[in-house]
Amino acid sequence: MLDSTRKDTETRITLIGTGTIGLSFAALYLASHLASPSQLTIYDTRTDVAEYVQESLPKFFEDEESSSLPSFAEVKIAKSLEEAVEHASIVQESGPENAPFKINLWAEVEKYAPKDALLWSSTSGIPASQQNCKMQDTSRVLVVHPYNPPHIMPLLELVPSPETSGEVIKRTHEFWRARGRVPIHIKKETTGFVANRLAFALLREAVYLVDQGVVSVEELDQIVQTSMGPRWAVAGPFKSYHAGGGPDGLEGFFKNIGGTVQDCWADSGTPKVGDGWEEKVFRDAKEAYGTVDVAERDRITRRLLQVLEEEKSKTGSAW
Amino acid sequence: MLDSTRKDTETRITLIGTGTIGLSFAALYLASHLASPSQLTIYDTRTDVAEYVQESLPKFFEDEESSSLPSFAEVKIAKSLEEAVEHASIVQESGPENAPFKINLWAEVEKYAPKDALLWSSTSGIPASQQNCKMQDTSRVLVVHPYNPPHIMPLLELVPSPETSGEVIKRTHEFWRARGRVPIHIKKETTGFVANRLAFALLREAVYLVDQGVVSVEELDQIVQTSMGPRWAVAGPFKSYHAGGGPDGLEGFFKNIGGTVQDCWADSGTPKVGDGWEEKVFRDAKEAYGTVDVAERDRITRRLLQVLEEEKSKTGSAW
Repeated sequence: MLDSTRKDTETRITLIGTGTIGLSFAALYLASHLASPSQLTIYDTRTDVAEYVQESLPKFFEDEESSSLPSFAEVKIAKSLEEAVEHASIVQESGPENAPFKINLWAEVEKYAPKDALLWSSTSGIPASQQNCKMQDTSRVLVVHPYNPPHIMPLLELVPSPETSGEVIKRTHEFWRARGRVPIHIKKETTGFVANRLAFALLREAVYLVDQGVVSVEELDQIVQTSMGPRWAVAGPFKSYHAGGGPDGLEGFFKNIGGTVQDCWADSGTPKVGDGWEEKVFRDAKEAYGTVDVAERDRITRRLLQVLEEEKSKTGSAW
Repeated sequence: MLDSTRKDTETRITLIGTGTIGLSFAALYLASHLASPSQLTIYDTRTDVAEYVQESLPKFFEDEESSSLPSFAEVKIAKSLEEAVEHASIVQESGPENAPFKINLWAEVEKYAPKDALLWSSTSGIPASQQNCKMQDTSRVLVVHPYNPPHIMPLLELVPSPETSGEVIKRTHEFWRARGRVPIHIKKETTGFVANRLAFALLREAVYLVDQGVVSVEELDQIVQTSMGPRWAVAGPFKSYHAGGGPDGLEGFFKNIGGTVQDCWADSGTPKVGDGWEEKVFRDAKEAYGTVDVAERDRITRRLLQVLEEEKSKTGSAW
């Protein structure tokens, strides 16, 4: 099925799994098709996959100009794993977050995919060094962890196992750079990688402060939205505090208010999942937000990213 | 000096202290003068205060259209504390971060300021309940903590002491709402208040990850800038995870990935200030950034906030 339409100038991308992340990656590739042509193949074991994709994928483009909508007819639906991967230059799995599934998947993929195909996992927690354990060639798999949803957010955490080859990391990095995204090479397979660890560290303190009655869920969000959110969109925490420290940079910052920083760290709450704060915090969130209009959030996020993109291209700096 | 120019329709704001925060507040009031007229008085014990303000204040407007520049001649420089506060409707101190200074200042201010003047401290760490300890009327002082720089960032943390009157909190809240800013009432005098605690919690994890060699200072900033920065500018952490949890909201989110969250929390680093990570992290920051162009950062931040402001006024929602 694929051979007849295969064009060698295109990158042949195979997506495995049609959950939110898989479809969002599909939307990303379709949206960037003009600038970076790719032949997109989707594989999923669900029986209604063709209908499901046809119905679900257009929703990812609802906040776009209709004139820029890609042609969904270009997407191939593969009927077997072999058919899906046999000509792929990239195989990207966004399947269930369960280690046996991924371990078996890669062992199968390895049988059929071209030897030089890049093998990427979207997992948010199962390291490549675990996923590769039944493979002949363990140097091929790495984690390419997006920040949800990947068709909008620029970040991709590249998390190789110690066995992933430098060449595979390099090609993956170049692929994303060429598409204007921001791949970051995570040097160690740390639990939860980096972005989630950072976000969850703040979330933990947020849970503590709401649980203590210092502010409500909604007030806490307003605080972040009107301070570190926009600030960190422009300059991350280190850069911000480095700027705030005067001529001595980050060192000056800690000289000036290191005492306050340490007081906050020492006073930090350390709630655990299941500690009992959940009832109040979950109820607060439900009362404040009901059902969030994600399309609205995504539309505004795109506008912000567009501004940042413009500014970056003005100064020639890479994010 | 002040009586002759005093207009009763204007809010009479007295700023004490001409450090970065004090001048930034001055810039904020000047910039919003047309919409919200105010008579601005500045007091500082430095002998060259008039020249210093005249020279420094215009720098806060460097990234503005020159046509919208306010007239700096409107700013009054008071020669004594008495002259500074005797007709004030608001006295806002941004003096040194040292408790005895603030304690003595408020005891003095109380002697000369009108009984109904609002008394605000910009402190990032000295609670109102400590600052008010030599006052006759302890119900008047509260902390109005900005996110630096206040002439740009919308957030103001209102942190009353247990003795601050409800009326004082209410008037302070209304003042900032009327100026389109985002005042948030912090219900308890928590160490470091809320915004800094949240930011420092993430910073702590960031320090740990850089110290462990997982990513560099610059990579960590890029991660934040391309993921949670823009995301949290639009929807704070609770709202984001509530949206990510499907129909069950935040509860659904924790049902789905609470395990990963707890794994990250359990694995979190807990470096302390002075632990020895400083040398590497400070050097990394210096090498990556040298001297940060703050005017550039502020200009881009203004553009983002402008987009967010437009969106808020479209939907009629308050941030």
